[in-house]
Amino acid sequence: MSHNTFGHLFRVTTWGESHGPAIGAVVDGCPPGVALDEADIQVHLDRRRPGQSRFTTQRQEADAVKILSGVFNDTSGRQVTTGTPIALEIQNTDQRSKDYGDIKDKYRPGHADFTYDAKYGIRDYRGGGRSSARETASRVAAGAVARKVLGGVTIRSALVQIGPHKVDRATWNWDEIANNPFFSPDRKAVETWTEYLDKVRKAGSSVGAIIEVVAEGVPAGWGAPLYGKLDQDLASAMMSINAVKGVEIGAGMSAAELTGEENADEIRIGNDGKPIFLSNHAGGILGGISTGQPIVCRFAVKPTSSILAPRKTIDKQGHDTEIITKGRHDPCVGIRAVPVGEAMMAIVLADHFLRHRGQTGR
Amino acid sequence: MSHNTFGHLFRVTTWGESHGPAIGAVVDGCPPGVALDEADIQVHLDRRRPGQSRFTTQRQEADAVKILSGVFNDTSGRQVTTGTPIALEIQNTDQRSKDYGDIKDKYRPGHADFTYDAKYGIRDYRGGGRSSARETASRVAAGAVARKVLGGVTIRSALVQIGPHKVDRATWNWDEIANNPFFSPDRKAVETWTEYLDKVRKAGSSVGAIIEVVAEGVPAGWGAPLYGKLDQDLASAMMSINAVKGVEIGAGMSAAELTGEENADEIRIGNDGKPIFLSNHAGGILGGISTGQPIVCRFAVKPTSSILAPRKTIDKQGHDTEIITKGRHDPCVGIRAVPVGEAMMAIVLADHFLRHRGQTGR
Amino acid sequence: MSHNTFGHLFRVTTWGESHGPAIGAVVDGCPPGVALDEADIQVHLDRRRPGQSRFTTQRQEADAVKILSGVFNDTSGRQVTTGTPIALEIQNTDQRSKDYGDIKDKYRPGHADFTYDAKYGIRDYRGGGRSSARETASRVAAGAVARKVLGGVTIRSALVQIGPHKVDRATWNWDEIANNPFFSPDRKAVETWTEYLDKVRKAGSSVGAIIEVVAEGVPAGWGAPLYGKLDQDLASAMMSINAVKGVEIGAGMSAAELTGEENADEIRIGNDGKPIFLSNHAGGILGGISTGQPIVCRFAVKPTSSILAPRKTIDKQGHDTEIITKGRHDPCVGIRAVPVGEAMMAIVLADHFLRHRGQTGR
Amino acid sequence: MSHNTFGHLFRVTTWGESHGPAIGAVVDGCPPGVALDEADIQVHLDRRRPGQSRFTTQRQEADAVKILSGVFNDTSGRQVTTGTPIALEIQNTDQRSKDYGDIKDKYRPGHADFTYDAKYGIRDYRGGGRSSARETASRVAAGAVARKVLGGVTIRSALVQIGPHKVDRATWNWDEIANNPFFSPDRKAVETWTEYLDKVRKAGSSVGAIIEVVAEGVPAGWGAPLYGKLDQDLASAMMSINAVKGVEIGAGMSAAELTGEENADEIRIGNDGKPIFLSNHAGGILGGISTGQPIVCRFAVKPTSSILAPRKTIDKQGHDTEIITKGRHDPCVGIRAVPVGEAMMAIVLADHFLRHRGQTGR
Repeated sequence: MSHNTFGHLFRVTTWGESHGPAIGAVVDGCPPGVALDEADIQVHLDRRRPGQSRFTTQRQEADAVKILSGVFNDTSGRQVTTGTPIALEIQNTDQRSKDYGDIKDKYRPGHADFTYDAKYGIRDYRGGGRSSARETASRVAAGAVARKVLGGVTIRSALVQIGPHKVDRATWNWDEIANNPFFSPDRKAVETWTEYLDKVRKAGSSVGAIIEVVAEGVPAGWGAPLYGKLDQDLASAMMSINAVKGVEIGAGMSAAELTGEENADEIRIGNDGKPIFLSNHAGGILGGISTGQPIVCRFAVKPTSSILAPRKTIDKQGHDTEIITKGRHDPCVGIRAVPVGEAMMAIVLADHFLRHRGQTGR
Repeated sequence: MSHNTFGHLFRVTTWGESHGPAIGAVVDGCPPGVALDEADIQVHLDRRRPGQSRFTTQRQEADAVKILSGVFNDTSGRQVTTGTPIALEIQNTDQRSKDYGDIKDKYRPGHADFTYDAKYGIRDYRGGGRSSARETASRVAAGAVARKVLGGVTIRSALVQIGPHKVDRATWNWDEIANNPFFSPDRKAVETWTEYLDKVRKAGSSVGAIIEVVAEGVPAGWGAPLYGKLDQDLASAMMSINAVKGVEIGAGMSAAELTGEENADEIRIGNDGKPIFLSNHAGGILGGISTGQPIVCRFAVKPTSSILAPRKTIDKQGHDTEIITKGRHDPCVGIRAVPVGEAMMAIVLADHFLRHRGQTGR
Repeated sequence: MSHNTFGHLFRVTTWGESHGPAIGAVVDGCPPGVALDEADIQVHLDRRRPGQSRFTTQRQEADAVKILSGVFNDTSGRQVTTGTPIALEIQNTDQRSKDYGDIKDKYRPGHADFTYDAKYGIRDYRGGGRSSARETASRVAAGAVARKVLGGVTIRSALVQIGPHKVDRATWNWDEIANNPFFSPDRKAVETWTEYLDKVRKAGSSVGAIIEVVAEGVPAGWGAPLYGKLDQDLASAMMSINAVKGVEIGAGMSAAELTGEENADEIRIGNDGKPIFLSNHAGGILGGISTGQPIVCRFAVKPTSSILAPRKTIDKQGHDTEIITKGRHDPCVGIRAVPVGEAMMAIVLADHFLRHRGQTGR
Repeated sequence: MSHNTFGHLFRVTTWGESHGPAIGAVVDGCPPGVALDEADIQVHLDRRRPGQSRFTTQRQEADAVKILSGVFNDTSGRQVTTGTPIALEIQNTDQRSKDYGDIKDKYRPGHADFTYDAKYGIRDYRGGGRSSARETASRVAAGAVARKVLGGVTIRSALVQIGPHKVDRATWNWDEIANNPFFSPDRKAVETWTEYLDKVRKAGSSVGAIIEVVAEGVPAGWGAPLYGKLDQDLASAMMSINAVKGVEIGAGMSAAELTGEENADEIRIGNDGKPIFLSNHAGGILGGISTGQPIVCRFAVKPTSSILAPRKTIDKQGHDTEIITKGRHDPCVGIRAVPVGEAMMAIVLADHFLRHRGQTGR
């Protein structure tokens, strides 16, 4: 909604730089009485943590979260939310002391170095400062709170494409995701990707990816026309993640190639009296409001801009120069974006759940 | 930002239904002293107006805008904005009286009929009510005000794909856009599209499209990390337009297939001391902040859901049934979305211009 | 919340100048299914309408409201809200054509003339433009919608002081309010005020007033610590009314003189199991949250600044000069502020009702 | 603006409970390049710190602030803001371990105990939890940042009334304020207050107070009609402080007793070409916009509700009971509200400075 706050009733404010003492989030507007302890959050942070395979950055961060406010024991001794702001904090422990001379004065192509300087006239250049992917840990922590609020809603996500290699949707298996370092739902893609990414990594290069996030169990009716559409807020949320360049709902960009007959999902009444949609090109959203079908959202992450090949750039003083970005970077930063996309979906849905309940009482 | 308001400092609130007495917008936060009269707005409304070719709905609307507040003559007698809310109003003149029995009780697949009922328990079914594409006239009117605020920024847009047929970017010519009913920048595509859409129209079918919006002259520095990113607000704005299912910035979804070397736009210093980017995969935005390059945004519009072919659906009472949607609909509603995309780009940029100036004084 | 919008979930945006073609309000976020027609609103506008006694301005305005959107007939044929924006519009009919030469170039002391020019460099000087008390008609119209949302809550207000003359609280009678042109709950005060105001009026002078607004039936629990306190939003709402200079909740400014024993309202359990407070110094709000007692709010309105006595001022060109403000002004503008205070109370409560329901589900 | 966030462009979010591990604030939207280190903030926290005289709570808190993000060294080595969120954190060090059995189950009259339970069904009862005056340390910290943004604006405040005893305005001396534990601008009042408060304290009672905050150096033009008025946002800010029951701008509630001639501040042109107002009943604000005169705001703080006298109340189980509140409380909590009022004034002004600059470019 504003600079560093996201959401309307369920609101998340994040703060912190890659190489400062800590990063964190304040979650405001959370309903009271929701069971919440640090383990509930840690499990999601652990999924995002770097250094877990050779395909993500080798930076080692414990990413241990502390809850500093907003929870208390209820009468049964269980720790629950109180309805007041939940402050979450994660210490930075592996800000490797190094020479930042290069990126201090040179603008890395594809990075926010130039634009931060253009906007603010100053930037914390250490490890990317505020624009570092490290900030996404705060999102994952806040998203874990949102999940607890959502109860019956299941949110999962998968990597569906790395470079030119897509998963085979015919063999999609959600259970597979925990078994490989790519969050791949397709066992066969794991081999292809391993081989492909090893090559990319050894070349000092990087590559992009596409992530798909699916929420099941969202009732019909969440969302709000016309400038609070559910898909609009999802697009905003996903596009706010570092390095994201495109967002799709349901059929997405390919909707351009569909005919009206193909696109308009037909409806039948199910045995339980609820509508059954015969397809889901809408991605579970019509007119900005949920249909009761799974919410399906995809986003593309550009390749890591930090690569070993020398790149033409300029320096702060306005001279042409070259830069090689060394350091502990991800050959495919899209991999670690998988839990981040889930978190953003959870935050958007929690917000719309409360907004819908506020306006309609349901 | 909220239900029917968009923007932070430059804020637009729209209201009105397809078949009510009028629709309108309130533009709040506009800088004072900006020359503005009804003709400045009308010219953009005229570009969007339906009934101008056989490829858009035959509904006939004058779409004549009235400014009801927020302007006054300055000392030189010129009408300018006063800094107070600008109320814009457009009468509905062609709400054809007809029998809505069919869509009153049946949910049109691909439309918001079912979801509005699920959310609110009631809906104005006449012509789609609030969810009608008619509402986009309010956006175009508000966007015209935003353009005046932006001064040196040029915002243009084009249709780049209809169904499977794309424009040839090698022959892109902005001047061509005013010469054809498709807003096509490629003269050759006009023939292909004419033939193709005639077939679609005669079959009572419809098809999707992709629109590209480009803003030139935006200085480096607009936008705000991390939840007020310029691309994020553009994604939100475009996804809020009826029937949009995907949004891309720069390389967009295809960023997934790029390598780091291909993606990271290299930089040189120009003769004027300003940076020159050797490519624009970033679409003019890095870290959520403008680079000074053209801002490039694309969005996909799904095919009009109102088609002549009978479709399976359910009624309000929960019975299986079929529906055929007659009426004056667009075979390719994406065509009329071209000026709407421009308007949303203008509103987002005007808002970020003021936000940037507020925080930094520049 | 922002320039011309008020509220969070139940949101009101107003627009329009005193001598433009019309004024209006857009009410967004209203729950669906609330019975609403123009008569529901008109009754409140009629209470505020000028020209009803010699103690308010003699401007004659019909103040007839039109609902332009956001309502529809439900299945029983009753007109109800649809949950989409409700556009309310009131034509200006008595913008007397006159010579504004004087206030065009001179700044009336006590008015916003100087500050609007200082801020915007331009202003619509006709009748005060945007800063005219005429704008409060939009608030009353929006407040009428809020009342319908609030159901069981009763909101009433009274004039409790004019100049030095206060009502006698011992003889307070709400029924008396409709019987006199002052909204006085004390029959005896009517005589005193009549005599006093006649003198003020004949002297071409004016005087201030205090209004008390009381809401009964608000359940315990509305409001939100710490920056969304119910009393804070009431203070904001009342202070936003033209000419208001002070706001009090419960004991108000006199709380400074109380001891802890006097101030802390003691509690007993009632026969219905609900708490009974033995006094109400808190004005029905503790920690920013409603207690279930009546919400009591007072605000002071300064005397009309437009008076017949000549006043020292400056002109736009920066010269010392004098001004006499002729025209159809209120000797005590506080009288007409009574229904406005009620309306603002209703809007704040409707917003907090929805916010509370959103966060807690109750 | 929302639950625990305040401000529009310069935004403050606070979190934390009285007896949790820490409290803090996130300041978002701060302009870049503003010199800021911990000492700049600590000096203001030290003024508010409890335990500095026998007239405030004896709780001993170091109130040492840490800046966790949003600052960096500029090229000259000075630590400045970067434009990204500034996280401020204060450890709680004196959460005395004690038996909270009494307030755990009984509702203290005048406290938020009952209303938090009514709203949330749960509360952190230790030391008042979120509703503790301890939270105001976060405001003071954030206000210190706002002051740095405001540059040429001087913000000072004074205690002007304790119980029935007011300062003598004829002998007002700002320099006196640092010389006494009451922030009194009147040396003579110190004796009266000392004697009076000693009596109150020994009786185990408490008493209310009035604070006056004055901002000098604010240029004409800040503020925004009609729902972003400067006085409205001040009223909101002051009323959000714990225990405040009334807010006044300029003449305040006494405006009711003034005539138009007395109230409307006359204007002359000064030697520097700037307007000179011959009085300041407006408190420096007309039509919601600053006049260039000093901004004058007062607020009343109710007496501390925690007193030694037994008070009738109820318990959670719904039984009548009595309570005596022991503990380390302030006989006049209004004293410590003086730096808090200053901080809130600074935050509101900083926000309006940026908002004004955003809209008008000045």
